Amino acid sequence: MSYQTIREAAYEANMQLPRLGLVLFTFGNVSAADRDAGVFAIKPSGVPYELLSPSKMVIVDFDGHTVEGDLRPSSDTLTHAVLYKHWPKIGAIVHTHSTYATAWAQSQRDIPIYGTTHADHNTVNIPCAPPMDDRMIQGDYEYQTGFQIMQCLEQKGLSYEEVEMILVGNHAPFTWGKNADKAVYNSAVLESIAQMAYLTEQIRKDVPVLKDSLIKKHFERKHGPGSYYGQ
Amino acid sequence: MSYQTIREAAYEANMQLPRLGLVLFTFGNVSAADRDAGVFAIKPSGVPYELLSPSKMVIVDFDGHTVEGDLRPSSDTLTHAVLYKHWPKIGAIVHTHSTYATAWAQSQRDIPIYGTTHADHNTVNIPCAPPMDDRMIQGDYEYQTGFQIMQCLEQKGLSYEEVEMILVGNHAPFTWGKNADKAVYNSAVLESIAQMAYLTEQIRKDVPVLKDSLIKKHFERKHGPGSYYGQ
Amino acid sequence: MSYQTIREAAYEANMQLPRLGLVLFTFGNVSAADRDAGVFAIKPSGVPYELLSPSKMVIVDFDGHTVEGDLRPSSDTLTHAVLYKHWPKIGAIVHTHSTYATAWAQSQRDIPIYGTTHADHNTVNIPCAPPMDDRMIQGDYEYQTGFQIMQCLEQKGLSYEEVEMILVGNHAPFTWGKNADKAVYNSAVLESIAQMAYLTEQIRKDVPVLKDSLIKKHFERKHGPGSYYGQ
Amino acid sequence: MSYQTIREAAYEANMQLPRLGLVLFTFGNVSAADRDAGVFAIKPSGVPYELLSPSKMVIVDFDGHTVEGDLRPSSDTLTHAVLYKHWPKIGAIVHTHSTYATAWAQSQRDIPIYGTTHADHNTVNIPCAPPMDDRMIQGDYEYQTGFQIMQCLEQKGLSYEEVEMILVGNHAPFTWGKNADKAVYNSAVLESIAQMAYLTEQIRKDVPVLKDSLIKKHFERKHGPGSYYGQ
Repeated sequence: MSYQTIREAAYEANMQLPRLGLVLFTFGNVSAADRDAGVFAIKPSGVPYELLSPSKMVIVDFDGHTVEGDLRPSSDTLTHAVLYKHWPKIGAIVHTHSTYATAWAQSQRDIPIYGTTHADHNTVNIPCAPPMDDRMIQGDYEYQTGFQIMQCLEQKGLSYEEVEMILVGNHAPFTWGKNADKAVYNSAVLESIAQMAYLTEQIRKDVPVLKDSLIKKHFERKHGPGSYYGQ
Repeated sequence: MSYQTIREAAYEANMQLPRLGLVLFTFGNVSAADRDAGVFAIKPSGVPYELLSPSKMVIVDFDGHTVEGDLRPSSDTLTHAVLYKHWPKIGAIVHTHSTYATAWAQSQRDIPIYGTTHADHNTVNIPCAPPMDDRMIQGDYEYQTGFQIMQCLEQKGLSYEEVEMILVGNHAPFTWGKNADKAVYNSAVLESIAQMAYLTEQIRKDVPVLKDSLIKKHFERKHGPGSYYGQ
Repeated sequence: MSYQTIREAAYEANMQLPRLGLVLFTFGNVSAADRDAGVFAIKPSGVPYELLSPSKMVIVDFDGHTVEGDLRPSSDTLTHAVLYKHWPKIGAIVHTHSTYATAWAQSQRDIPIYGTTHADHNTVNIPCAPPMDDRMIQGDYEYQTGFQIMQCLEQKGLSYEEVEMILVGNHAPFTWGKNADKAVYNSAVLESIAQMAYLTEQIRKDVPVLKDSLIKKHFERKHGPGSYYGQ
Repeated sequence: MSYQTIREAAYEANMQLPRLGLVLFTFGNVSAADRDAGVFAIKPSGVPYELLSPSKMVIVDFDGHTVEGDLRPSSDTLTHAVLYKHWPKIGAIVHTHSTYATAWAQSQRDIPIYGTTHADHNTVNIPCAPPMDDRMIQGDYEYQTGFQIMQCLEQKGLSYEEVEMILVGNHAPFTWGKNADKAVYNSAVLESIAQMAYLTEQIRKDVPVLKDSLIKKHFERKHGPGSYYGQ
């Protein structure tokens, strides 16, 4: 079978979502890209997790056309395609409706940076893209969702390499990364940050965001040139 | 044994409820109907899940009379019977006291449609039927509960085919569907929607409901004539 | 070994507490009484659940004196003893620090009756006994806790046969019943009621309590002379 | 292999953290000290829990220098080293980002003492050290975190032997104890206290803290000279 590496990566990553408590039934999808071949493997639409296998992953190109596979790909496939096409350094994308991140998306608020758990992964509030205008929704909806995500980062002056997670207003989170493990990791981290930020505001109404020196310190511990986290 | 198909369907569906975290002890019941035979199989009352089996399901007709079985059927049997009698296209009914959906029912509020997870399944707020008047309660309570559910949909101009879930005020949720798997699925979806709506309001007090264009788009992705979700 | 029946009942019931998510570490205890022998079996103090066995249960009389056993009984033993001595019809007592019930106890509020899940088990708000006065605390604290519980019911005009659960203000819940299974069941029901009542008030600030007709109907479905729940 | 005892103690304690639901991925670390040898064993940085083993623990002295081990120690190692150096009676330290305790840390509030679950372990509010000033952050951050913890206790007139847990403002909790089991136990207790205190304030806005007589009584039941909890 061709594209075996990305089939297996996408399969394994999809299977991690229920284990991490990030999806109910089939409410999520992961894709993994092969940059040289210009394609990605993605979960078929609406197939229960227990029936998935690497061979059932659908191979799609960066314009959203199915290259290999009998099953219909995830209904969110065009969003994945747009992001792969425009963001050359990402290798995987995850979409879930995880509880706390989705509640923030439904509230249409960015998630404020309240602590070092957040700063270990991002130096800014987690952006929430506004709901699309009606024309975009009625048009090619999933395709436009990709552009809505890109436009939100652009308007906030953020790069997809700095911030590997976003909320789509009224909808739910998307995360990405250099590979499928990292993209799934980002989805779990986002859900944890979303839960903690919610609780923080309940515990103290007027809580201030993290100060710049702490944001900088924690992010650089993990990601800066002098990082000293991990092996 | 007769009615084997609906016995097994009802048994399997009842067993799914604790696995999905939707019931504590025996606080829930599922029935599955055989339309040709004019009967449904339902959980016996107050029997622990670990002692259930297909043969213990009670067979009841659409007037609520036991047709086959030594055990007393669920105390909510008459509610199921009324709905089967009046709604010819449903094949199964689920009643639970799942935590978040029951909290909304206790608050006597409809669950506002705040996001696409909700819109993937319904185009309207999840209705909450008001508590019954005292005469209905003192009369044939479970029978009247069925009429209260039907009347609530009618007054809101909703069809049971469009909205497969409802809250009964001060009580708890009921869901239904073409078969037992779908009705159980609807109970789990309702619980997730109820939790997210609760969190959304905590995160932002004045949060607006979803706009019409997004409601329409998401529902039609899954259910319209041009739907493209699933296989 | 003597008192084998209550040793096993107390052991099995204690082991249920972590399975039901009602205790962290050793923060709970169950006792089971033999009315003819005038003794009860109770968990030894501070012994991890995985090291318990029926033979490690301590046998204590209704004045709180150890009758059989090398281990020190639960530090709450005198509370159990007082209740057994004064309430002739109970066969078991459970004390936990379960999360939601304890939060209500810490808030020193009765749990209002907001729905039928509550009314299926009690016709009144779950009472919260006020914290004891300083003299009672400095005296024989656990012994006085028993009297505080009895006094609270008395002042509210409630019988221990009608209401099998109480919160002790600033402390945590106690439940009881005719046997150990029922007392543990009551602890799990109380935790569920406590969580739902908390959520109900978050969802709607001015939520009314259940009306009398519904309280009466639901309680009598399960407990009245014409009850029709269970087998 | 040398330092086998503390290697195993640190390994076992680290493995308890995910089982107790206190960490996501590698967001936590435990160390265990050998006072005679003047060293402690600590988790290597960023290594998944499933790949850990006693031999992978890193041996570090109380100035933070690695004594044995090829892997880089936890990025929080210097905080552990400072505390071991200045607190001669502790044998283990735990750092987690557990959900509720971290939310309180992010809110920069002490956790008020609302009930006996709290008083069983501490006679005071759980202190929250303020975020460090910018100079301390930009300097030797983890080293300064240790001093920030010590200074907070000192300013509140508390001893590390009385209070075995603290929140670091905007960051997360640290706990300690005579050995690794006790330090992990303290982390789980803190998380439970943090969750209950949060819920208590949601249930009642103006809730008073526990009165002195109850604080004293419960703490002394477990820890005073006349304690009668445990064996």
